[in-house]
Amino acid sequence: MTTSDAGLLADLNPLPSGLDARLRDHLTFLIEVDKLKTILRQSPLAAAQRRENDAEHSWHLALMVMVLAEYADEPIDVGHTIKLVVVHDLVEIYAGDTPIYDTEAGVSQQEREEAAADQLFGILPEDSGRALRALWDEFEARTTPEARFAKAMDRFQPLLLNWMAKGGTWRTPGVTAEAVRGRKAVIGEASKTLWETARHLIDEGERRGWARG
Amino acid sequence: MTTSDAGLLADLNPLPSGLDARLRDHLTFLIEVDKLKTILRQSPLAAAQRRENDAEHSWHLALMVMVLAEYADEPIDVGHTIKLVVVHDLVEIYAGDTPIYDTEAGVSQQEREEAAADQLFGILPEDSGRALRALWDEFEARTTPEARFAKAMDRFQPLLLNWMAKGGTWRTPGVTAEAVRGRKAVIGEASKTLWETARHLIDEGERRGWARG
Repeated sequence: MTTSDAGLLADLNPLPSGLDARLRDHLTFLIEVDKLKTILRQSPLAAAQRRENDAEHSWHLALMVMVLAEYADEPIDVGHTIKLVVVHDLVEIYAGDTPIYDTEAGVSQQEREEAAADQLFGILPEDSGRALRALWDEFEARTTPEARFAKAMDRFQPLLLNWMAKGGTWRTPGVTAEAVRGRKAVIGEASKTLWETARHLIDEGERRGWARG
Repeated sequence: MTTSDAGLLADLNPLPSGLDARLRDHLTFLIEVDKLKTILRQSPLAAAQRRENDAEHSWHLALMVMVLAEYADEPIDVGHTIKLVVVHDLVEIYAGDTPIYDTEAGVSQQEREEAAADQLFGILPEDSGRALRALWDEFEARTTPEARFAKAMDRFQPLLLNWMAKGGTWRTPGVTAEAVRGRKAVIGEASKTLWETARHLIDEGERRGWARG
């Protein structure tokens, strides 16, 4: 899925001359991010027989933030938390999606994603790129209540899809219910209620044979 | 595309017992909205040979708000504007997408969308549903700077995709460059700069034969 060598999407049909240079850079970036719609995740949709892509996943998280904010253990700025989820997967445009249970790919993930961030946010005017990069760094660091809640949404959303699929990625070879609980525990850093709910879904999935014991 | 008679998605595999009733309603709604990923728009993606769906379109608008907010003619609350674009197309889950140049479908659009909003937001606990409905009403009414900017993004984004497609929906039978300009003029209510840019893209598209004169 790495498309970093393919050049900018906007170069395939350059924007017309006569645009302000700063605005041209903004639009070039906004065309480039169309690629996020082609980055497939492992999760199966609940509403159709296909895998989810990063762009629709990110939208789903944004709506989840709005609906589930009341379960946050610490006060959060909802608008800011939505910004974090909107940008959180952008680096996958160049770094690809790293499946959550692929521990080997996980090792090189941070390095690949840092390089991808430099490349992608570098398309923007410097101040605009710095602002988006700061949001991605905040999401990754999880040192703010907003970042912890955004991360919790990122881990909680696939649980809903896996539940609807009666297993989904829980059925990945080698993955156990205990491994799923381990990867999802980070939800508890943001919301006791949602972490209890997540465990309830996983426990019940295990009981029904949708995840291995 | 109307799926209102098909029942709730969550009914296909009910959530386990033992969940708090309020939280269950929140999760039932968040599963239901997965359907937005199956509502196809007319716009072709720039990054792949397929049409765009409403969920990824809404994500794209959210990122556009963040990147283009500096071009707003009035001060806007960026976080609030993002909320508006995240919810703006939700009613299409039951009402379907109404193509922008389909004037016949446009007549019944408001009525169908109001009914869809009652149905969809009615899945939620009353206060949560009222909050999301208020955002959708605000977007539709365009009486706040945030709603005007959100609407501008909704009209500007397909211009970028159509530009990349060397025409896209501009080539819809019966549609002229002048009709496109007419439908896009609302961008000017939020940003003089972005409206000038939109006109520049349409004018240049017409000059190149991608839109009929």
